[in-house]
Amino acid sequence: MATMRPAALDAALRGCIRAQTRRPAIRNGLQHRKTTPCRTQTRCISDGSRPPIPPTTPGPSKVVAPKTRLAVGVVFIGALIYSMATGDKPPPSKPDDTPRSGVQLETPSIAERDSLSKRESGVTTRSPMRLRMEAFIKENQQEIVRALEALDGSQRFQIDKWDRPNGGGGITCVLQDGNVFEKAGVNTSVVYGTLPRAGIEKMRVNHKALDPDVESLEFFAAGLSLVLHPQNPMAPTVHLNYRYFETANSDGSTNAWWFGGGTDLTPSYLFDEDVIHFHRNIKEACDAHDKDYYSRFKKWCDEYFSVKHRGETRGVGGIFFDDLDESEKDQESLFSFVQTCLGAFLPSYLPIIEKRKDMPFTEKEKQWQQLRRGRYVEFNLVHDRGTAFGLNTPGARIESILMSLPLTARWQYQHEPEKGSREARLIDVLKKPVEWV
Amino acid sequence: MATMRPAALDAALRGCIRAQTRRPAIRNGLQHRKTTPCRTQTRCISDGSRPPIPPTTPGPSKVVAPKTRLAVGVVFIGALIYSMATGDKPPPSKPDDTPRSGVQLETPSIAERDSLSKRESGVTTRSPMRLRMEAFIKENQQEIVRALEALDGSQRFQIDKWDRPNGGGGITCVLQDGNVFEKAGVNTSVVYGTLPRAGIEKMRVNHKALDPDVESLEFFAAGLSLVLHPQNPMAPTVHLNYRYFETANSDGSTNAWWFGGGTDLTPSYLFDEDVIHFHRNIKEACDAHDKDYYSRFKKWCDEYFSVKHRGETRGVGGIFFDDLDESEKDQESLFSFVQTCLGAFLPSYLPIIEKRKDMPFTEKEKQWQQLRRGRYVEFNLVHDRGTAFGLNTPGARIESILMSLPLTARWQYQHEPEKGSREARLIDVLKKPVEWV
Repeated sequence: MATMRPAALDAALRGCIRAQTRRPAIRNGLQHRKTTPCRTQTRCISDGSRPPIPPTTPGPSKVVAPKTRLAVGVVFIGALIYSMATGDKPPPSKPDDTPRSGVQLETPSIAERDSLSKRESGVTTRSPMRLRMEAFIKENQQEIVRALEALDGSQRFQIDKWDRPNGGGGITCVLQDGNVFEKAGVNTSVVYGTLPRAGIEKMRVNHKALDPDVESLEFFAAGLSLVLHPQNPMAPTVHLNYRYFETANSDGSTNAWWFGGGTDLTPSYLFDEDVIHFHRNIKEACDAHDKDYYSRFKKWCDEYFSVKHRGETRGVGGIFFDDLDESEKDQESLFSFVQTCLGAFLPSYLPIIEKRKDMPFTEKEKQWQQLRRGRYVEFNLVHDRGTAFGLNTPGARIESILMSLPLTARWQYQHEPEKGSREARLIDVLKKPVEWV
Repeated sequence: MATMRPAALDAALRGCIRAQTRRPAIRNGLQHRKTTPCRTQTRCISDGSRPPIPPTTPGPSKVVAPKTRLAVGVVFIGALIYSMATGDKPPPSKPDDTPRSGVQLETPSIAERDSLSKRESGVTTRSPMRLRMEAFIKENQQEIVRALEALDGSQRFQIDKWDRPNGGGGITCVLQDGNVFEKAGVNTSVVYGTLPRAGIEKMRVNHKALDPDVESLEFFAAGLSLVLHPQNPMAPTVHLNYRYFETANSDGSTNAWWFGGGTDLTPSYLFDEDVIHFHRNIKEACDAHDKDYYSRFKKWCDEYFSVKHRGETRGVGGIFFDDLDESEKDQESLFSFVQTCLGAFLPSYLPIIEKRKDMPFTEKEKQWQQLRRGRYVEFNLVHDRGTAFGLNTPGARIESILMSLPLTARWQYQHEPEKGSREARLIDVLKKPVEWV
């Protein structure tokens, strides 16, 4: 309970999303089949009369209990989403129509700053990290979607986009019942929001720098998450999530920020060489930035992706980390680390799926895969606090939250693998995580 | 959130259960294929030197907020289970080895009283309600299992029994991949336990009669629950749960008691005549005891079996009630009501399944059933606090807790039924519950 699941923030982000009307907007390079933007128009500055806004800089906040920070953050986002969704203190539909409590009347929101900055200068290495992270995850989403479409061969991703009322939005890409993938979801979300006072008070537990006297605090969150469930039981499921979170001071400067994320592999049948390849690849990405990262984050992953009620890990692990902020390394170094990790994804997974996607298998092996899918559902619905939170958030885009679930799953009473079988060996490994590299 | 799900207590009960060693005990009339009793022997009195113990009588406790009472009760049971499972203050393995805190040394536990009473007098209408409820649910479990086996034709139920260290135990009966049923689970549980002081303090919120100064308080809980998932998509899933809860004063007399339970129908395809038959049957059972019961408990059921994140009820309802105690009616009348309700189960469901089990269906209709199965999984894993609590309880018998899940389920991104279709009509009804009788 001390750590947050990687999907947690992402689910909270996805929980923010509404898709109620359609409009034919095409806003990035992804092939665009469906648009489901939000009923409320994106809030943006409608004229160019304001001066350019300089990038924000990291503030001096110090984190006390990093492992619990995201959890609190998710609760905060949730509280915000709830108040937005239920219509308490609805956000103004145009800038400066209504004063933002706790924020000076004349200070533009970070969403406004970012919108203006993008329009005037595009996104460069001098842009705020918010914009750089957003651009980075969207580029990677496109690249991953293209690679997976090429691999699957049979069909293309269904792409659903939406905007959020106060800035930000999301793109959900899902490929279902393909040649290679039973279900593949690749999702990006960008959220601009405001933490209410009650939220700030709770957040101060881990963010002493936060001013307890302000009425609200702006925040930004962006993340990419993906879950791929292959058809072939010899090919493993894979999950990945990388995210960035930031809060703003009332003058718009950055207050606190951190990166989180990770990736983990969930096979139904163990091929040691695959797991070693996956872990070696991740370790190389980690080693390029810090020789301690892999062992720290591998352990964190094993602890985190635990189907506790079964006494098993979800799969054979990978890495998981959270709350990486200036107490860890400077922002540029951590962004670079996340870039390397996400860049390592396709090389870590494609060779495995290429090798396994056409292997022969029996009906019994397919059923075993379906039982393991059931465990995946159990983890996501029972233990993932972010998913649970998203599902309990009125107005959440449920289909984006639950894109992580497999197309099919199975629960068989008292199923036990035969002693000495391949299935039994998997369970042994899930009960006692292995050092793969 | 104000009401508890019917499966909640049951899941908490099931969560108490361990199955670690085997012994060939056969203790009731059910055909017994597997025994998985608890590692720790049943705690019972080993000699006949004590005087016979008279049946306990209901105490004068008054309930303040009945709807939240079971929720607290479940948390209590959970706290107890947790402390037992983690070895905090382990219960004495033999009577009087260790004094029971808060209970006089010379006062036998209610488990001991009941064990002695059963051995000396059997169970009669003069026995404590605990023993009468236990006998009643076990008889009904046998009858239902026999009727379902006869209906299915292809195979018999797998029966797993266990004992609990401090008295009580459970019988889980599951039939899987049969002719008629994809999965059918019929479960009874009997729990004798002790509420620790912290638990009593919380429980006092709804039980002012409870003495805040005692260190512990004995409780008893017994229930029958069943979930039947048919193979044929034209045949509805059905759930039923009836339970009795009691706490004891330090002298062994009854402190507080209440009944809870209900039954609800979950079709994939609507046949109005089936739903009307089901509801009419339940209404007749209710009407025989109180003309207000059906409308009160039908409404409670619709509120309770709500897949909130989907904005749908789980199915077409039935009845749900909880916390029925002396403020409602005397114990004898309420037991009689629960007996009538449980007795109405087979007549309410058998005619429906007989009519639908062999109907022709298409692959598309089967897939729709599988999607609805996914929703069932969502309700049970996301919204059922009892299931969640059981799954988070160390040492719980997970397979008994999750017997309620279907054999197979499906999640399809953005699936929407065609307008005017039978599938769309079901969704309409789930979004706006109907008065069927």
